Amino acid sequence: MSRRLVQTPQPPYYAVIFTSVRSGNQDGYLEVAGDMERLAAQQDGYLGHETARNRDGSGMTISYWRDEEAISAWRVNAKHRLARKLGNERWYDEYELRIARVEHAYSGPRTMED
Amino acid sequence: MSRRLVQTPQPPYYAVIFTSVRSGNQDGYLEVAGDMERLAAQQDGYLGHETARNRDGSGMTISYWRDEEAISAWRVNAKHRLARKLGNERWYDEYELRIARVEHAYSGPRTMED
Repeated sequence: MSRRLVQTPQPPYYAVIFTSVRSGNQDGYLEVAGDMERLAAQQDGYLGHETARNRDGSGMTISYWRDEEAISAWRVNAKHRLARKLGNERWYDEYELRIARVEHAYSGPRTMED
Repeated sequence: MSRRLVQTPQPPYYAVIFTSVRSGNQDGYLEVAGDMERLAAQQDGYLGHETARNRDGSGMTISYWRDEEAISAWRVNAKHRLARKLGNERWYDEYELRIARVEHAYSGPRTMED
């Protein structure tokens, strides 16, 4: 069966968790978001990303990375910096960004014996 | 301004990242999910949770915890185990569960100087 969720390697690796509430101004968002998805996928150490959003405008995007160095390199990318600037000024009422080290991972469904 | 996103303490703390694709059978899901939300919130070390789901059935829930011991205690809770059994048998076509140590966290929107 082909899986729809991102398949990541064995831990450890890193997750960047971006939770947000959208503002009323989404001008330019879709275009820039698409550009950032394509650009991130070209970065060394990028492992994949997933996103979900509720109808009330709250949502989250998680991207997975090989290590902190890969996250840092993406962070200083000039186009990514410009996209973040627009996010700060325009697209989000609030957000939280968390950088986390994935230590354990499990796939399912499965029979649980624990 | 009151914030809608979960407010967590300074890192380090833990995130349990559950990404999933729903099956066609959601019998009993809403009731059990509500019960689990209430029960988790009573656990020692629980810091909050957030969830988002797309219209295509893919989505994610992240819960935040003080430490690994708090996650382990919730993991062996009998009602939670029963809920996970139903999730495995009924509610999900696929899922990934990741346990991650949050090392850095930032709130926004903000002016970025980095």
